[in-house]
Amino acid sequence: MADEVVLLDFWPSMFAMRVRVALAEKEIEYESKEDDLWNKSDLLLKMNPIHKKIPVLIHNGKPVCESLIIIQYIDEVWNDRSPFLPSDPYHRAHARFWADFVDKKVYSVARKLWATKGEEQEAAKKDFLEIYKTLEGELGEKPYFGGETFGLVDIALVTFYSWFYVYETFGKFSMETECPKIIAWAKRCMKKESVAKSLPDQKKIYESVLDLRKIFGLE
Amino acid sequence: MADEVVLLDFWPSMFAMRVRVALAEKEIEYESKEDDLWNKSDLLLKMNPIHKKIPVLIHNGKPVCESLIIIQYIDEVWNDRSPFLPSDPYHRAHARFWADFVDKKVYSVARKLWATKGEEQEAAKKDFLEIYKTLEGELGEKPYFGGETFGLVDIALVTFYSWFYVYETFGKFSMETECPKIIAWAKRCMKKESVAKSLPDQKKIYESVLDLRKIFGLE
Repeated sequence: MADEVVLLDFWPSMFAMRVRVALAEKEIEYESKEDDLWNKSDLLLKMNPIHKKIPVLIHNGKPVCESLIIIQYIDEVWNDRSPFLPSDPYHRAHARFWADFVDKKVYSVARKLWATKGEEQEAAKKDFLEIYKTLEGELGEKPYFGGETFGLVDIALVTFYSWFYVYETFGKFSMETECPKIIAWAKRCMKKESVAKSLPDQKKIYESVLDLRKIFGLE
Repeated sequence: MADEVVLLDFWPSMFAMRVRVALAEKEIEYESKEDDLWNKSDLLLKMNPIHKKIPVLIHNGKPVCESLIIIQYIDEVWNDRSPFLPSDPYHRAHARFWADFVDKKVYSVARKLWATKGEEQEAAKKDFLEIYKTLEGELGEKPYFGGETFGLVDIALVTFYSWFYVYETFGKFSMETECPKIIAWAKRCMKKESVAKSLPDQKKIYESVLDLRKIFGLE
């Protein structure tokens, strides 16, 4: 029996994008079901009753939730190609540490760049650049966070690249100037078909954010 | 060469306790170095420069940080006994989901039970009991979260039991009344030597919290 793989998806979500990249890296065919965050589907509420959040990977009817957990699940099930984690336990722990760092730090601060204003936005800008400079330090001169191989940390972080036009426009800074190695790394990742086809156009996300800012009373 | 295992420790930390339980389960000898949260050691700042937090496991000179990542590291290195994760990828993802749930939900709410007052404390009490009832639902009739076997989720959650006297006293509720299955599960875990010897006495933690509340101006 062929695997039935369904992704409860939302196109501008960097967390859903991570799963799309992971599935593409493993060359797994799947059905994407776009959910509506303003009116969540019964399927989403049934498959992720605890967090009620996309992405959810439904593999042969069984749900897996939380993007980093889904990526590791995909890596363990389809373990015959493109490993996302190294085999050595110490290097695995190192990759998990940085993927966890991305999860704990980037999203909440990045969101404030476009969803707040004034002092809160200025503080977010400072934090955001500090976080990315820390990440740039970890990347160093390696082609990928995983070294020679595109892996867990690369998948976890690269999806935020699709939001850079939003962050730079509302935060009033240039990532090329602030973190040139991160930009070079992101462009390197974008040359991979798995990444390029999974990330939406930066301007398309910007258009949606303009609408959101009107709803939030920021425009 | 024998393994050199050092734990940068702090006795009342539920996150450090997790590592103590995991090391005890695997019967690994180690040196515990108690850190001072008010005056962090140079070793801690060197070994965990990003988060500057205990616990840190230093294995043959190399640091591993973040308690859930350390537990998985221990499980992968000492893989010849007491596995913390099941072998099936779906069950592994399920365990990771609930360990992640504990990390995201329990600590920040539990802290407010003793570190805040008034409406904030009341809201925390409601959230805390809701979180534990969700966990009780997940436990169901199983002896451990991992089923028949004590595993990752059990290690992640059981260490909070040492704080129950604090939570119950300041929150003014009885966990035995509210979540009897959780109490039965915790007592079952406490029969394991690995757990019993790694968790401090509930009253000892209560005494320290009384001191902390004075510093915070709550007494």
